Amino acid sequence: MQTPWEYRFAQRTQRMGSSAIRELLKLTEQPDIISFGGGMPAPDVFPYEQFMEACERVLRDQGHLALQYGATEGYKPLREMIVRHTNRLGIEITAENILITTGSQQALDLLGKILINPGDRILVESPTYLGALQAWAGYGAEYVTVPMDEHGMITDALEEALRTGPKFIYVLPNFQNPTGVTLSLERRHKLIELADRYGVPIVEDDPYGQLRYEGEHLPGIVVLDSQLRENGDQCYRGNVIYLSTFSKTLAPGLRLAWVVAPPEVIRKLVQAKQGADLHTSTFNQLVAYEVAHGGFLDQHVKLIQKVYGERRNVMLGAMDAYFPPGVEWTHPEGGLFLWGTLPEDQNAAEVLKAAVEQKVAFVPGAPFFPTGGGHNTMRLNFSNANPEKIQTGIARLGKVLSEKMGQPVSS
Amino acid sequence: MQTPWEYRFAQRTQRMGSSAIRELLKLTEQPDIISFGGGMPAPDVFPYEQFMEACERVLRDQGHLALQYGATEGYKPLREMIVRHTNRLGIEITAENILITTGSQQALDLLGKILINPGDRILVESPTYLGALQAWAGYGAEYVTVPMDEHGMITDALEEALRTGPKFIYVLPNFQNPTGVTLSLERRHKLIELADRYGVPIVEDDPYGQLRYEGEHLPGIVVLDSQLRENGDQCYRGNVIYLSTFSKTLAPGLRLAWVVAPPEVIRKLVQAKQGADLHTSTFNQLVAYEVAHGGFLDQHVKLIQKVYGERRNVMLGAMDAYFPPGVEWTHPEGGLFLWGTLPEDQNAAEVLKAAVEQKVAFVPGAPFFPTGGGHNTMRLNFSNANPEKIQTGIARLGKVLSEKMGQPVSS
Repeated sequence: MQTPWEYRFAQRTQRMGSSAIRELLKLTEQPDIISFGGGMPAPDVFPYEQFMEACERVLRDQGHLALQYGATEGYKPLREMIVRHTNRLGIEITAENILITTGSQQALDLLGKILINPGDRILVESPTYLGALQAWAGYGAEYVTVPMDEHGMITDALEEALRTGPKFIYVLPNFQNPTGVTLSLERRHKLIELADRYGVPIVEDDPYGQLRYEGEHLPGIVVLDSQLRENGDQCYRGNVIYLSTFSKTLAPGLRLAWVVAPPEVIRKLVQAKQGADLHTSTFNQLVAYEVAHGGFLDQHVKLIQKVYGERRNVMLGAMDAYFPPGVEWTHPEGGLFLWGTLPEDQNAAEVLKAAVEQKVAFVPGAPFFPTGGGHNTMRLNFSNANPEKIQTGIARLGKVLSEKMGQPVSS
Repeated sequence: MQTPWEYRFAQRTQRMGSSAIRELLKLTEQPDIISFGGGMPAPDVFPYEQFMEACERVLRDQGHLALQYGATEGYKPLREMIVRHTNRLGIEITAENILITTGSQQALDLLGKILINPGDRILVESPTYLGALQAWAGYGAEYVTVPMDEHGMITDALEEALRTGPKFIYVLPNFQNPTGVTLSLERRHKLIELADRYGVPIVEDDPYGQLRYEGEHLPGIVVLDSQLRENGDQCYRGNVIYLSTFSKTLAPGLRLAWVVAPPEVIRKLVQAKQGADLHTSTFNQLVAYEVAHGGFLDQHVKLIQKVYGERRNVMLGAMDAYFPPGVEWTHPEGGLFLWGTLPEDQNAAEVLKAAVEQKVAFVPGAPFFPTGGGHNTMRLNFSNANPEKIQTGIARLGKVLSEKMGQPVSS
């Protein structure tokens, strides 16, 4: 049936396209498939009891607030909790610097709306987070890319990219999605120095920063940038917009995240958010505050670190055991993902088709490269499946890879 | 402090502007002000007990789903519940026709994103819903307007507007925000007939359709349009995109609404929603389903009708008693708002300033007119304040109006 709408779609929809990952993941929805495809937390670590108690308290004592319309900026006590958390990281901000968003995906969408004119170039790591590319496609973003190695964005290639005049730099310094690699401290300094020299501001996306399983915590870009102030106090300079989320520490089903930005940026984001969804669910904000305040989150993060750290170890061990020579992969110090590179003559999308037949799935890496490439790369999630399934799934995938690569299957 | 961001705001932000209403309502946040300004439901009618029980059941039995990422389209049982509800209204659709959105505001934003090219004209009632104007400002919408009277959009003026080539018609047929008026059955038929003749599709926004306090329910535009099918069965034709919400029947704090549209429109909206917020809170969808299914909503709507119907009567009675001659107002058969018109020489924004000093507030009407006008109009909400406050507030406002209009204050 033809309807009058299909002739009326806006020009920007031609750039949007459906997510390649989404289409591929539809293949993997059969229950007997072991999927390393999504980026889902483990349901094992959701704090069900705490949510139950929080819902009851919130509805009993503050139901009239929780179920009502709320401020676009977000629930004040939650914003103030985030301020205290941010201050602890080493930068002084106030609630005027915070906007609550409906997941970090909305923060990316709103930033695109207030910053990107059609044709504007955004400087990104290659590969980079697919959700940002999806959010910004509708605003007509173009990209200039900087390649990565095991220490993150190769900052030696940054200056050339900066000279093309990008509007801003978008970077995921900790356990990057998709590669799992972490930007080294030296390169963080270099990034800030060059960004400052060229006057190009930075959007730092940090969904996983707290989920570190080995090594030392590294200060965020936003923190290091604050230290550039001449008078030596660590006041927020406003050059870096910082994004984080409760999706990985509490639960993604709440759709709760936040932006740290200068007040004039927050005001524009608030205008954009008014038009986008008025405000983020008041109920979820009150419930998250009730669960998270008073120190529960810090303690809960330790549980997540333990569970995901073990799963990462199991996956790395299984890859050692089952993957054929010629496949390489990253060793993430935290987060949810690791990244595999097959020999040049392999196509990860083809490998996925064979893998799905063997009841295992992953995400081919090509869609994460905004300017092309990566046909032989793959992203594997280690947080969602339990250790037993990780073992079985990686064994299956090892078999598929060995067959594709014409090598004897290890037993 | 200057930051690099303020030089980087996208061109579209110049059109966005902050909501005039929002700025005015900030004046009214003092606790001793009686505000008829917002569009908030009464906290008295929120079903707290049902929410408490639903949260417990959902977290106990389906917590692993409720707290996890979910499908962009929405929670299948909730979509199917909406399908049954829509079928009962008289049109046959399936879950392929439904998208769950983060409030109706998001539905408006996503429709803007997939349909509006900069400069496209949208045909709207004048005045119309301010949230639509806010959502579409960022997409560069222009407007062609059709005036209203007490029977809604004046369809005699519609044909001339249709000949300007609008992309679609946006209409709120039931208890319109801001005027509270309802489009008559005769004009509904005329609207559909003319839209069909010119091949221009319709977006029907119906947040309040169930909240009728007097008179007969009128079939929706989407229902009447379905009856145009030549073979006589009431299948959804796809010419009308229909929006509705749980904000007025359950609770706005959940941010839960839905779109009924042809599958090809739903697919585009899903792509846009992926980039905008991935999906609407799974937790809220499961809780709303748990509260709403099995007939609770029908029974609950009767309570809301009783409470709001009484408040409307109290407000209308108080206006009769306290407003000076020369002020006119609508008699809404449902919804949350009524609309006042002052003499031409009065400016409602000036009246508001005087009113706030007397501790009462409303929304001046001018921002609801996309192409100007309405300086002497005002929107009054009757759902949020209780009858006693409505009496007191309208008495205060009557005094302010009498003074402004140079008439003796009625006692």
